[in-house]
Amino acid sequence: MISTSAVDAYIEKNSRRFIEELEELCAFPSISNHGLDAVGPARDWIAGRLGRFTDRVETFDEGGMPALYAEVPGAGRRTLLLYQHYDVQPVDPIDLWDSDPFKPVEKDGRIIARGVADDKADVMARINALETLKGLGEIPVTLRFLVEGEEEIGSKTFETIAHKHADKLRADGCLWESGASFDDKGRPTLQFGCRGLLYVQLRVTMLDFDQHSGFASIYPSASMYLVEALSSLRDQDMNIRIDGFYERVVEPNDADRAMMAKIDPEIGQRRKLVGFDRLIRDPMAEHVIEQLLFTPTCNIAGITTGYQGKGSKTVLPAEATAKLDFRLIPDQDPDDILARLRTHFDSHGFEKVEIVWHDGEKPARSDPRSEIAKSVIGSVQELHGEPILWPFMPATGPMHPVVSDLGVPTVLPVGVGRPDNRIHAPNENIHAADYINTIRLMCRVWERFGAT
Amino acid sequence: MISTSAVDAYIEKNSRRFIEELEELCAFPSISNHGLDAVGPARDWIAGRLGRFTDRVETFDEGGMPALYAEVPGAGRRTLLLYQHYDVQPVDPIDLWDSDPFKPVEKDGRIIARGVADDKADVMARINALETLKGLGEIPVTLRFLVEGEEEIGSKTFETIAHKHADKLRADGCLWESGASFDDKGRPTLQFGCRGLLYVQLRVTMLDFDQHSGFASIYPSASMYLVEALSSLRDQDMNIRIDGFYERVVEPNDADRAMMAKIDPEIGQRRKLVGFDRLIRDPMAEHVIEQLLFTPTCNIAGITTGYQGKGSKTVLPAEATAKLDFRLIPDQDPDDILARLRTHFDSHGFEKVEIVWHDGEKPARSDPRSEIAKSVIGSVQELHGEPILWPFMPATGPMHPVVSDLGVPTVLPVGVGRPDNRIHAPNENIHAADYINTIRLMCRVWERFGAT
Repeated sequence: MISTSAVDAYIEKNSRRFIEELEELCAFPSISNHGLDAVGPARDWIAGRLGRFTDRVETFDEGGMPALYAEVPGAGRRTLLLYQHYDVQPVDPIDLWDSDPFKPVEKDGRIIARGVADDKADVMARINALETLKGLGEIPVTLRFLVEGEEEIGSKTFETIAHKHADKLRADGCLWESGASFDDKGRPTLQFGCRGLLYVQLRVTMLDFDQHSGFASIYPSASMYLVEALSSLRDQDMNIRIDGFYERVVEPNDADRAMMAKIDPEIGQRRKLVGFDRLIRDPMAEHVIEQLLFTPTCNIAGITTGYQGKGSKTVLPAEATAKLDFRLIPDQDPDDILARLRTHFDSHGFEKVEIVWHDGEKPARSDPRSEIAKSVIGSVQELHGEPILWPFMPATGPMHPVVSDLGVPTVLPVGVGRPDNRIHAPNENIHAADYINTIRLMCRVWERFGAT
Repeated sequence: MISTSAVDAYIEKNSRRFIEELEELCAFPSISNHGLDAVGPARDWIAGRLGRFTDRVETFDEGGMPALYAEVPGAGRRTLLLYQHYDVQPVDPIDLWDSDPFKPVEKDGRIIARGVADDKADVMARINALETLKGLGEIPVTLRFLVEGEEEIGSKTFETIAHKHADKLRADGCLWESGASFDDKGRPTLQFGCRGLLYVQLRVTMLDFDQHSGFASIYPSASMYLVEALSSLRDQDMNIRIDGFYERVVEPNDADRAMMAKIDPEIGQRRKLVGFDRLIRDPMAEHVIEQLLFTPTCNIAGITTGYQGKGSKTVLPAEATAKLDFRLIPDQDPDDILARLRTHFDSHGFEKVEIVWHDGEKPARSDPRSEIAKSVIGSVQELHGEPILWPFMPATGPMHPVVSDLGVPTVLPVGVGRPDNRIHAPNENIHAADYINTIRLMCRVWERFGAT
């Protein structure tokens, strides 16, 4: 095993170059929403970097944005899957950026660029951890890099890729892309899964074109019909009324409750509430974290119908649409919820609501007592102090194929994520020091895991 | 009395010039939505035209777009108020116009220009009827032209103008701007009033900015709250649930029923319905016209909240807004309905719905047996055949101050309006022949009314 002092010295000596390499990667405008040509150069650049350490580099192409795969054989018996993505979010609203999103700027210890936090710092921290250990001796575990190209547009071919290349991806553990790494008080945070998602659009059409609203006396209203259909989804106690919606929701177990008891409940108070001085259900309850994680949602993400400009226009809209997203808890399933939503509308007199499927991800949970989990927890304790553990994160990622189908114990480790990173927003940024610390943490985790 | 053959001959001889003068007026882009500078030139041009016949021309300015007023003394004892407006709707979507909206084009017997139907053909038909009768002899009635400048933006100062200048506006009868003058089968149509209107915007704000939708587990949803508030407005039988909403609605009387029995019920079938093969309430009922006129509405004219673009964005919207319009039946009152709406929300747990008032007009009914009504009916019979009579139109206009406050018997006469006029829409147009016929009809009505 290489000493941590040697590791830290190597990283410190090379830190300026490591930062410049991250900036080099951030200069590629790899916006997956813009298509294949947009993402190719960033993927090729990363392939070149990984090619310095292994000749087992290939792409997995299942008709979406290709994923990059590289296996780097290690000394020990352990295999470790590393999940990252090289694609980034679009930059709009571009007017709100203080600098060019693809010309990285350093300011007050921060690096500002689209994608620097989500997820290019993970990509480069892991490649540079590999360089560090290789430069000082041996890689203690066999590393399997999987760098996805369409995470920001729903990972549509990821499940196919995972199933088709299961032999290459199966491993003793997986480090997912890092998530919310530090809370508001700077405490390190680890997560062991994510919630699922069902995203649909609802559409009601009742007339061939908009009418003068005087005809509302005799013509049916698409907007009122949609409103009534949406209203039928929730009861007065804020419970979702879709029959069987909660059937597969797991209750938190004792280990979950023990973890949640240590999470700062003020996460629920961080945002200023306007008009309401309380959360839904309990007022700032001691169980707020349990509610945040274990309450599945049926959320109206958007509604569009009729006239939306200034002043008044008297129109009976021909059509009304809404976007609904459901956050799903283990063991809910997006396909099952979709079927139940259809049944709900049909049995409540809303047969005319058309449901268009947009996105679906199953929830994923991994055991916080796995070997990889223990290796991460131990390394974080050493480097940052006692971590806060979340049974899973409130958000969603394409973890299910890896965690459930391939059965790989998975951790969302500490990386560069802080509450003010502005991911998906203008002026996305990281602290340069967090990036360097992520390289240090990766080396420690790999050494620790290789010793199990 | 001047013979109708002399009148018709004069009009035929001058018809080309009359059309060119209408086109001259239509070339002014008098969009009231664009403010004072936009409407001034058209008003000045009309003032110049009226100034050829009288020196009693003035403007009524109560802080909105000024109205133009002109009194032309006549031979007989009767006074007749003529209501028109010189402002027009905006032109967007401009891409859907086949020609410049303010460069009138003649094609297949039609004149195409913004405002040609609504309402500049009325303005010029009435001025040219005045010229015709003056040219041949005497004006049989004292004419009081009132040419409003803000009809298309809600006539906000019209009530003040009507009250302040009541002495000048009070008359033995009033010809309102013409409405839907011919039905689908080409039958002439008269109306004796209009429905009222209340237009409000609803706003619900619950967070200081949009949140990641994962937080929908604990944060309140502005969009769901608004949806539930809107849904509370209607019961399963499509009745409005606002307490006392129907209290002041008058039932149709025998005269109303007699008139409505002669209206083509297919007006309710003219528009193609999609998804629904029936109207609300009764299927294509024999009472469809009674429903159209005498059922007040609570219509959702628009809803905006959250993400409305392509694909999916998982967001918990901080705010949700809706536009509601109510069509009111005599003797409903917009202020009363507004108060009842507030009470409804408060008493149903929706105190957080903010109501912003946009527009209000009281309904107006005039007696179809008045002298001016009889004069119009007789003249239309002579020129076009038996007219279809509507107790009032399903739409709204600022008639209430004239009809109810000043007590002037009022008719919406036959003008250029046909179902394919495309008023408020791209390629607004009239048949040139309808315009010439409107000049002929005005001369006949004035002669007939002067003889009463």
